[in-house]
Amino acid sequence: MKKVAVIGGGTGNFVVLRGLKKYNVDLTAIVSMADDGGSTGILRDELGVLPPGDVRQCLVALSNSSRLLRSLMNYRFENGNLGGHSFGNLLLSALEKVTGSFEKAVEEAGKILFIRGKVLPVTVHQVRLKMILNNHKILEGEKEIYLSREIDQGYKSILLEPYPKVNPYVLDEIKNTDLIVFSPGGWHTSVIPNIMVQGVAKALKASHAKKVFVVNLMNRKGQTTGYKVSDYLKELTSFLGCDIFDYILVNNASVSDDLIKKYSDEGELVYNDLVEKRVIEADLMGLMSSVNQKDLIKRSLIRHDSKKLASELVKIVDYL
Amino acid sequence: MKKVAVIGGGTGNFVVLRGLKKYNVDLTAIVSMADDGGSTGILRDELGVLPPGDVRQCLVALSNSSRLLRSLMNYRFENGNLGGHSFGNLLLSALEKVTGSFEKAVEEAGKILFIRGKVLPVTVHQVRLKMILNNHKILEGEKEIYLSREIDQGYKSILLEPYPKVNPYVLDEIKNTDLIVFSPGGWHTSVIPNIMVQGVAKALKASHAKKVFVVNLMNRKGQTTGYKVSDYLKELTSFLGCDIFDYILVNNASVSDDLIKKYSDEGELVYNDLVEKRVIEADLMGLMSSVNQKDLIKRSLIRHDSKKLASELVKIVDYL
Repeated sequence: MKKVAVIGGGTGNFVVLRGLKKYNVDLTAIVSMADDGGSTGILRDELGVLPPGDVRQCLVALSNSSRLLRSLMNYRFENGNLGGHSFGNLLLSALEKVTGSFEKAVEEAGKILFIRGKVLPVTVHQVRLKMILNNHKILEGEKEIYLSREIDQGYKSILLEPYPKVNPYVLDEIKNTDLIVFSPGGWHTSVIPNIMVQGVAKALKASHAKKVFVVNLMNRKGQTTGYKVSDYLKELTSFLGCDIFDYILVNNASVSDDLIKKYSDEGELVYNDLVEKRVIEADLMGLMSSVNQKDLIKRSLIRHDSKKLASELVKIVDYL
Repeated sequence: MKKVAVIGGGTGNFVVLRGLKKYNVDLTAIVSMADDGGSTGILRDELGVLPPGDVRQCLVALSNSSRLLRSLMNYRFENGNLGGHSFGNLLLSALEKVTGSFEKAVEEAGKILFIRGKVLPVTVHQVRLKMILNNHKILEGEKEIYLSREIDQGYKSILLEPYPKVNPYVLDEIKNTDLIVFSPGGWHTSVIPNIMVQGVAKALKASHAKKVFVVNLMNRKGQTTGYKVSDYLKELTSFLGCDIFDYILVNNASVSDDLIKKYSDEGELVYNDLVEKRVIEADLMGLMSSVNQKDLIKRSLIRHDSKKLASELVKIVDYL
């Protein structure tokens, strides 16, 4: 069975994993650990635990448990002091306390959820994402960066503080896998932070695995305004030190003018300006409608379609 | 396989179930639903859920899952807004929200914990325990009653408000079981409240099952001060309408004078003044030492020993 490692944040990895789970591949999720917003942020601050949110989404994507158990993991308490906490985040945090280790907590949660595959936090050290803009403003934390609308004016650096050691299992996985998929997701908050972890870029360059870059569907206004596919590739390459990608997976389907207008305040569809053999163009467009209204509005309706994305990725796997 | 139904609150049922679980009997826990203190009380108030705490303890007692999963269920968050909440309570409350039903929540939690047997809440209606004392003071809620030190001055009534319908599965169980065990526990807060539920006393009287009354080890000062075994039996009988017990299981072991002195402010050992054939005297004494210091001090160190208690109960089962 071919081994596929998927690297990214919670939402992007979820979409890739959920699709690939239906195929006969050995899956590993490598997950960004920079989240500090919402339920996750409160748990970090109040309990001193590592951020559970992104890991939770990957566990749910790989879970073979009942639909009920998966719903439970994503259930958010609505009232009182628990309001906003997702149950799965509480599970991971309680398991971290009981076992004394976040890695063990992820492993045990994986057993409860009967996951197929593995979920590996990219680091098990407490880190905060930080960004220094060209105008000298300092953005502290993933949430602040995610909400900023002036990143497209240029930035001097992105960093994780303190500079974290990589989870050694992640290095093994990068070395021994057959395919590495860069999941879509928050560009400066979920995709790039994984590469900021000590040793990850080096391992990626050294790995003989084929590498696929799944380009985001939409630019994010104030962050990646006007980015074309070449801009994403250039920026990612600058953090990696060189261009490591064997495949670049790009959406070529559009959505209705209505929807584009509705989301014009959030961003526009990414335009592909790269004409190279490794660029695969396909309809990857999906429209999320099952999430609750609050989430939809906050996180945008336009998402990769799990099935379409997986079907393109599996063509690559079959070719290996 | 003989069927045994155990009726009581969380702590007492836990002790009985944990011991009986090792034997070849078909176990059902019937659980009081009047708890409104601590984590359970907050969840009732803030989320409007049914009280999970006592049910959680019964689930853990019957669980065949790993020691880790059982520790997780009893794990209490220590800091922030989650401080004091036990994880198992959050699990049951989240499951109640996701499934829309407390009974379904208990069933699903049972699956996650691989329980052997069944756990049945005595009612699935929201109720509050209330006590009217002889001095006309009204005690509202289980917590207030549990902490009162003037109940031994006499009370006019104990009631559940609003007067709750029984869980129909409980009636089936009472009717069809071979043995019914009244677990020890908080006298006015865990033992008696089960009988206050509409239909329970009638079903108990009608049932052909043998009934065992496990008498508490200790009196509680200000509540059952100076009670002898006959006083417990008389009070229970007054709520049931008649004496239904085939066996009365009484501890005859003492503890060190030191410990008796240490706990003299909480209460004294119960003295047996009943000389009847149905009274079984045995060493049932256990000393809890595994609980955390905070709990020990609050809840008293002297508890029934699961193994000793189960061994006496199983003799009765073998005799059926």
